[in-house]
Amino acid sequence: MAVVGSGRPEPELDALAEAVGRGLAQRGATLVCGGLGGVMEAACRGARDAGGLTLGLLPGSARTDANPYLTVAIATGLGELRNGLVVRAADAVIAVGGGYGTLSEIGFALKLGRPVVGLATWQPSRGGEAVDSVIAASDPAEAVERALDLAGRR
Amino acid sequence: MAVVGSGRPEPELDALAEAVGRGLAQRGATLVCGGLGGVMEAACRGARDAGGLTLGLLPGSARTDANPYLTVAIATGLGELRNGLVVRAADAVIAVGGGYGTLSEIGFALKLGRPVVGLATWQPSRGGEAVDSVIAASDPAEAVERALDLAGRR
Amino acid sequence: MAVVGSGRPEPELDALAEAVGRGLAQRGATLVCGGLGGVMEAACRGARDAGGLTLGLLPGSARTDANPYLTVAIATGLGELRNGLVVRAADAVIAVGGGYGTLSEIGFALKLGRPVVGLATWQPSRGGEAVDSVIAASDPAEAVERALDLAGRR
Amino acid sequence: MAVVGSGRPEPELDALAEAVGRGLAQRGATLVCGGLGGVMEAACRGARDAGGLTLGLLPGSARTDANPYLTVAIATGLGELRNGLVVRAADAVIAVGGGYGTLSEIGFALKLGRPVVGLATWQPSRGGEAVDSVIAASDPAEAVERALDLAGRR
Repeated sequence: MAVVGSGRPEPELDALAEAVGRGLAQRGATLVCGGLGGVMEAACRGARDAGGLTLGLLPGSARTDANPYLTVAIATGLGELRNGLVVRAADAVIAVGGGYGTLSEIGFALKLGRPVVGLATWQPSRGGEAVDSVIAASDPAEAVERALDLAGRR
Repeated sequence: MAVVGSGRPEPELDALAEAVGRGLAQRGATLVCGGLGGVMEAACRGARDAGGLTLGLLPGSARTDANPYLTVAIATGLGELRNGLVVRAADAVIAVGGGYGTLSEIGFALKLGRPVVGLATWQPSRGGEAVDSVIAASDPAEAVERALDLAGRR
Repeated sequence: MAVVGSGRPEPELDALAEAVGRGLAQRGATLVCGGLGGVMEAACRGARDAGGLTLGLLPGSARTDANPYLTVAIATGLGELRNGLVVRAADAVIAVGGGYGTLSEIGFALKLGRPVVGLATWQPSRGGEAVDSVIAASDPAEAVERALDLAGRR
Repeated sequence: MAVVGSGRPEPELDALAEAVGRGLAQRGATLVCGGLGGVMEAACRGARDAGGLTLGLLPGSARTDANPYLTVAIATGLGELRNGLVVRAADAVIAVGGGYGTLSEIGFALKLGRPVVGLATWQPSRGGEAVDSVIAASDPAEAVERALDLAGRR
């Protein structure tokens, strides 16, 4: 399961991400993310607290930027293109907040047919009308539940 | 200059893309795209009509899917990750219509600091509010003008 | 630590690779490989037998080809370009036998400054003279020892 | 046609590369390379002198390092992984001298089934025996002839 979101710390979003990470680990899911701070770090912290496995696909070619809660850190050296690897590596994606990098991950995931569940994240619209693509969850528990359910059906 | 959009033919959007391609070539800009059909093919046709240079970065590992209006076709073998290369290769991006692949390109471009000008394309919003990120143009001539202007300022 | 080699089963080489995998796990190193059969599978089997963590970076966009001894399988969808990720992800590389894909990994690793230790593998030469680039080991135990030693010095 | 080799200027090798580039352009072939200096720049200079089209796939995410003889420069931001794109983009490869990066390109090309013609370049061997994989040419004219011939048969 991929968890995507901003690398800059934002207390409210990070609390949501930590709960998502914990929930995924409690259900036995491996967490894949971009390996940096903010939402990524919070989700990993939650997952590790619950004994889970966390995998970070870093943009740079060194592991120096990895957050301290990764079981495995991979320095891809692909820059922002590693966003595509993060979503390809997962059966479903949970987006928590997020900036333009997260928007690219949502687009990628939908293009690749990966379901995307969102918490306080992007809602793409076209021609003034929302396109029902990101499944909005009301809290971390629901996000975990929906994402695991959708991943299982692929 | 990158032109991004759907690979499936849609007459109205393709007419816009062809005019965009022609306009870019008339201004001496090289056109970069994903190399397939639909908006990509139409933009290349317009550019070649006007004597321009067109470059296609294909998702597959063979050049068989290339549209016939490419000066150079590169089989990247990266799948949808080539979307990131398309926008990285350009100083600005013009999006015409488009599906989820185009959404990923818009996200990438904005993350990388490439200006995005849109014709009938995605408008991302967050928390119910539009985020002014894609610059809407009302017609192909305006799109070309804005994109070249913004590219020059980078 | 990356272990690279052919995906086609070859009993003698696979036995070497299994011993390499076991040795790495006993020393606490995480094993990274291309995730397929042959040398990759044998190394993972050895590592898992010894309680180690194994990571496979698959060339395809689905996890169907993953060998059964991977702790984490990542479908990169990059084709043979994933070879570059495998060596970038590691601090040193152990090459066991191998074909042209392995040759590309050796070249990449040396270019990136990753030490390469070899068992029955390529020895590049130029102008009729061998270039001392791949450090030949005489058995799996020596390969593990040399590779961990060199990785630690980076 | 891809031309690969070192980015550091070496007068003898650069003279060979320039003649290769000129020969390819005279035969109407598009030249693809890594876009930097040394062999890459010399080959592009030769090709442009003869009115040819040259394409550079740069490792960095900016076009600042591009040599001045490129018709099109693409900043891939993939680092050394762009080596795989260079050979994938071509029907055959001509290697002139070269270091470890060139060795990775030779391995990639052979893995992907692209014929490789060499001038003063790597000759891989295994178990003390040369593996006939790189086709040695005695001069630039022969290299161009052999590579175009082999590319046409694919």
